[in-house]
Amino acid sequence: MTQAKIGVTGLAVMGANLARNLARHGHTVAVHNRSHRRTKALIEDHGHEGDFVACETPEDLVAALERPRRILIMVKAGAPTDAVIEEFTPLLEPGDMLVDGGNAHFADTRRREAALRERGIHFVGAGVSGGEEGALLGPSIMPGGSRESYEALGPMLEDIAAKVDGVPCCTHIGPDGAGHFVKMVHNGIEYADMQLIAEAYDLIRQGLGRSPAELADIFAAWNEGELSSYLIEITAEVLRQVDAATGAPLVDVIADRAEQKGTGRWTVQIALDLGVPVSGIAEAVFARSLSGHADLRAAARALPGPSGAPAAPVGEDFVEDVRRALYASKIVAYAQGFDQIRAGSAEYGWDVDPGALATIWRGGCIIRAVFLDRIREAYEAESTPVTLLTAPYFAQALTVAQDSWRRVVARAAELGVPVPGFSTALAYYDALRAERLPAALIQGQRDFFGAHTYERVEREGSFHTLWSGDRTEVEA
Amino acid sequence: MTQAKIGVTGLAVMGANLARNLARHGHTVAVHNRSHRRTKALIEDHGHEGDFVACETPEDLVAALERPRRILIMVKAGAPTDAVIEEFTPLLEPGDMLVDGGNAHFADTRRREAALRERGIHFVGAGVSGGEEGALLGPSIMPGGSRESYEALGPMLEDIAAKVDGVPCCTHIGPDGAGHFVKMVHNGIEYADMQLIAEAYDLIRQGLGRSPAELADIFAAWNEGELSSYLIEITAEVLRQVDAATGAPLVDVIADRAEQKGTGRWTVQIALDLGVPVSGIAEAVFARSLSGHADLRAAARALPGPSGAPAAPVGEDFVEDVRRALYASKIVAYAQGFDQIRAGSAEYGWDVDPGALATIWRGGCIIRAVFLDRIREAYEAESTPVTLLTAPYFAQALTVAQDSWRRVVARAAELGVPVPGFSTALAYYDALRAERLPAALIQGQRDFFGAHTYERVEREGSFHTLWSGDRTEVEA
Repeated sequence: MTQAKIGVTGLAVMGANLARNLARHGHTVAVHNRSHRRTKALIEDHGHEGDFVACETPEDLVAALERPRRILIMVKAGAPTDAVIEEFTPLLEPGDMLVDGGNAHFADTRRREAALRERGIHFVGAGVSGGEEGALLGPSIMPGGSRESYEALGPMLEDIAAKVDGVPCCTHIGPDGAGHFVKMVHNGIEYADMQLIAEAYDLIRQGLGRSPAELADIFAAWNEGELSSYLIEITAEVLRQVDAATGAPLVDVIADRAEQKGTGRWTVQIALDLGVPVSGIAEAVFARSLSGHADLRAAARALPGPSGAPAAPVGEDFVEDVRRALYASKIVAYAQGFDQIRAGSAEYGWDVDPGALATIWRGGCIIRAVFLDRIREAYEAESTPVTLLTAPYFAQALTVAQDSWRRVVARAAELGVPVPGFSTALAYYDALRAERLPAALIQGQRDFFGAHTYERVEREGSFHTLWSGDRTEVEA
Repeated sequence: MTQAKIGVTGLAVMGANLARNLARHGHTVAVHNRSHRRTKALIEDHGHEGDFVACETPEDLVAALERPRRILIMVKAGAPTDAVIEEFTPLLEPGDMLVDGGNAHFADTRRREAALRERGIHFVGAGVSGGEEGALLGPSIMPGGSRESYEALGPMLEDIAAKVDGVPCCTHIGPDGAGHFVKMVHNGIEYADMQLIAEAYDLIRQGLGRSPAELADIFAAWNEGELSSYLIEITAEVLRQVDAATGAPLVDVIADRAEQKGTGRWTVQIALDLGVPVSGIAEAVFARSLSGHADLRAAARALPGPSGAPAAPVGEDFVEDVRRALYASKIVAYAQGFDQIRAGSAEYGWDVDPGALATIWRGGCIIRAVFLDRIREAYEAESTPVTLLTAPYFAQALTVAQDSWRRVVARAAELGVPVPGFSTALAYYDALRAERLPAALIQGQRDFFGAHTYERVEREGSFHTLWSGDRTEVEA
């Protein structure tokens, strides 16, 4: 019997497609699913694509693999993942590898990695992006775990990953939970990017009265320039789609309630713990929540909108202004996400290479874009930027865009079109470049009501004003 | 020996002041501190204010109390609180009460309450707001825990709480962690309120060139109207303060780095779990984080600001526009906070009464304001509003304010002054009242890349377009 190179357990669409991708690349794949029916279906429908070994039980799967064993787990995050790990662990030997390719919380991955390490088993949390199609044709893969496990797994994963300029969209991210952490932030950035695109669409539609079909043309044109990306491309596709049942644009038939599965929320929660302002991602998560609050929205529909016209006309130039505002806001959202990755890497000692990360996000994943190549260049430059905003290319892009960006945020406020993503990005830009922030007043208030003390601009130390006394200052 | 009515363990400023407040109201108070020196100091300095029983050990404290015993724990949140609970629990009997008056995370309070309930001991997580001065002269108190414990504790707590129109600023919030939950959201709202005040100050200072002293006058004048509140009052005080060392306004000498202790962050993290958009609080937390990122700020200072003048002049009317924008943004921040309390109450089965909560926040606490009386009225009205925004008084206030609000957000963008709080509040207002949101496009994108399906506006069901096939729609 042929010893399989790798095993896959969990053959829902993502697992099945990754197994097929492996087989198509010439790797013998042992496949297993809790219900054997699914395994048989995979072999029947796609068995001709490569060498599969159908396994009915976990014991069969383990027996089918060459050693050290490599098993890719593709089941739901949370309890199902723990259940599979518990099922397989007793069957494994030191040096074997369990790879979790789901969207686990990185803290769970850290916990699992530590527990399995004690038994000599490598646990690899691997972020996989690209959806069903990516899994089959080439995803972006972000494996964490030990360097040793990557030596055994990397070549196979790089084989099935997307390629950009011949470079595979897969690299070793860092120890334990690093892979799932960066996948989480990837998804958070994706939320922000989608929200910004939605705002751009809404503004041009409401501000200039353009139709979805006209907007499809605008996005298709934008996809030829610096905004060129998968998300802009599919936006044009969605906007061009006509609903067969009603003849209306599909976007007008879809209920305006955006759902979410958790990684965006996690990104913001972890960023708060790390003290990293990821306002673009937060606003995107909140915008989705808000869209689903049918009761609040129904109650609030009667509230009034603007009574007058904008202070400056909204004319043809507005489309280009919006394009620039979108690009500038996108730069901010990505800068914030990369800041979070840097902070997480420092906190957990992962030594994540942001340039390598930008490299593997250029293809395969949902946020793939020409833009990621600019980020790669920024981080591979001789002097690494403290924030992406100040890397030469991005600083220049922001300089070109900023007046447009200001006009767009101003006109949106005056028109009554909600642009939480555009405006938080601009506020971040203006706050970061501010010589002085009104945070000094806040710290003064805190000292007043809570004796929390303050620092002074010109000398070291902590100080407190005796607010309810004679208002002299004391050193704390 | 006199049996004391209540014991206080932990005699740092908050604990000592609460003990003094109790004694001043005629309650015999047993006091204990890990280091007895502090207990002796309290008795020496303030023993004349009432009846204190100084206790050297936990055993002494327990022995000094009438039964059932009431012990108020005033130590640091986290491990120190657990340590004190472990120390006292073996000494207590069924029916005794442990009250945690610190800023514990409500999840810890739930855990502790459940563990102590098994031993027949009432554990009461009580939020206490008002700072040091409030603790001494009358705080706002938010006790959770059992109804039974409130019957034994309530009268004493109501006695020492602030009073507004003769009504004590203390009420039973709900079971287990309800008290600490609402205190957490109180602090979150406080963050948002302070951020909005800081933005108003910054805008008038930068937009009209007013000095801190002139701004002190403006805030003092605002404090006479609908904005009348403790935070506006102390803002005027802080802005009027002149630094003795330099002769400069104190606000210009304080380092512009606002610190935080965790409750604002927790509020946002929990809101994300509950699916409640609290963007005002989130922006305030992020603004504080951002102010502390010295390296990013230093790098970004060279980024350019606006090249032109605003589309409309910034003249004398701007002060009144900013006042209205501040009021409208404040309404949104409080509406979001009360939404979170409603959601938390539903999630944990607490049955929190928002009207009663607004009532006890009218005095004693940091966010005390005339405004809270309007919120109380809104929730005590015959038809409870789904959101505060649509309660008649607030809907009217927003209607009056909204054009000013739009002008302020627009001019801020054009002037280059960061107003994350004002602009997220306006975006929330405009999104909530929107007939259609671009969330439909986002849901379309999700269906395109992840087959996440969508709902339709005109009929039930989940649908998916075969994007990579013939683009017909199928029912999912």
